[in-house]
Amino acid sequence: MSVPRNAVILLSGGLDSATVLAQARSQGYACYALSFDYGQRHRVELDAAARVATLLGATEHRVSRLDLAMFGGSALTDLNIAVPEQLAAGIPVTYVPARNTIMLSIALAWAEVLGSRDIFIGVNAVDYSGYPDCRPEYIAAFEAMGNLATKAGVEGQQLRIHAPLMQLSKAQIVALGTTLGVDYTATISCYQADASGRACGVCDSCRLRHQGFVEAGVADPTRYAVTP
Amino acid sequence: MSVPRNAVILLSGGLDSATVLAQARSQGYACYALSFDYGQRHRVELDAAARVATLLGATEHRVSRLDLAMFGGSALTDLNIAVPEQLAAGIPVTYVPARNTIMLSIALAWAEVLGSRDIFIGVNAVDYSGYPDCRPEYIAAFEAMGNLATKAGVEGQQLRIHAPLMQLSKAQIVALGTTLGVDYTATISCYQADASGRACGVCDSCRLRHQGFVEAGVADPTRYAVTP
Repeated sequence: MSVPRNAVILLSGGLDSATVLAQARSQGYACYALSFDYGQRHRVELDAAARVATLLGATEHRVSRLDLAMFGGSALTDLNIAVPEQLAAGIPVTYVPARNTIMLSIALAWAEVLGSRDIFIGVNAVDYSGYPDCRPEYIAAFEAMGNLATKAGVEGQQLRIHAPLMQLSKAQIVALGTTLGVDYTATISCYQADASGRACGVCDSCRLRHQGFVEAGVADPTRYAVTP
Repeated sequence: MSVPRNAVILLSGGLDSATVLAQARSQGYACYALSFDYGQRHRVELDAAARVATLLGATEHRVSRLDLAMFGGSALTDLNIAVPEQLAAGIPVTYVPARNTIMLSIALAWAEVLGSRDIFIGVNAVDYSGYPDCRPEYIAAFEAMGNLATKAGVEGQQLRIHAPLMQLSKAQIVALGTTLGVDYTATISCYQADASGRACGVCDSCRLRHQGFVEAGVADPTRYAVTP
């Protein structure tokens, strides 16, 4: 029996990262799921992350506390900036400065301690084209930097940042996850879900999610306050 | 009167980062000093960082809490790993996995919110050749990644990671700081300073620091438990 390779999976509790965790598990990785309590207004997603980690068989799930709200600058961490109800051109106000870079950096630390050279992240260049840190060239640059940053990189072990959803539409992600057996009722995508986990139905993230289910021809199991 | 440009300065409270802050100030930057409470055993360095920020005229000083000890893997965050008393070949046990990457990433977030494209870090390839994330090629790779990660980078504003101490010996750093008027009594370099800020005198960091003063021909103002 071969020993599974360890991977660190960034797990927000949303639809995308749940799908990524399911895919990494299906590829035989022992998965160390990492979530962040970063001052986000939708902290209820952390409960979703814990449920998803258990349901999909993560070896371990840790939540790292990180005060991104101390800098503000995003609708997700600054209660004075409203969550927009429709997609606009350019970089959205829900962009959190350097968020993926910070999360990948902390994943890099855990990976190094675990002796893992595989990090999975659910970024997507199709639906989130406005986020600079969701582009393939960014992921490639992080991988190059990460190889120079770490002991394992110096010793010649190649770091790989897996972004398997990069070129998929939301409908394709829903279809992939459904094939892999993901129970999407456990996930929360909404930027302003209420304490019970009910999604608002009007933010960007709710609209994209619902549209994904519709286009995939899969019944949307999400509880919405207002049907998108 | 021209408006000073903003810069984010990583400030540990040690000799190197104090010198970097003095240099950035001398170049006319409005300096936003950033320290980390990351579970380090030498937390007393945070008091030093606050003193240094005030003495050297930082515009603002913030301390970001970050739980690097949750992963362990270093003598600086794991009390079960002893701080070594002499320099050894290879990567030292005081190396903290991905520490500089995480700190630079959080500096990148603050810089983006401040509209700054200048981050200063006191890494040094001469004395800390064993740390992968203190090498010039690492800093260059971080800069390339940071430009792709951020809104400002997408809009064509070039990020610069300044590492002005990179090629200096500890003696040259002491000489530079002395010229710039740094009061090194305010700084703490020791990996295991006591609660009063007294340095142990036997760890790598104390030895390097003391040797720097000796070679620079500057009186070492450090309070040591054991003279190095």
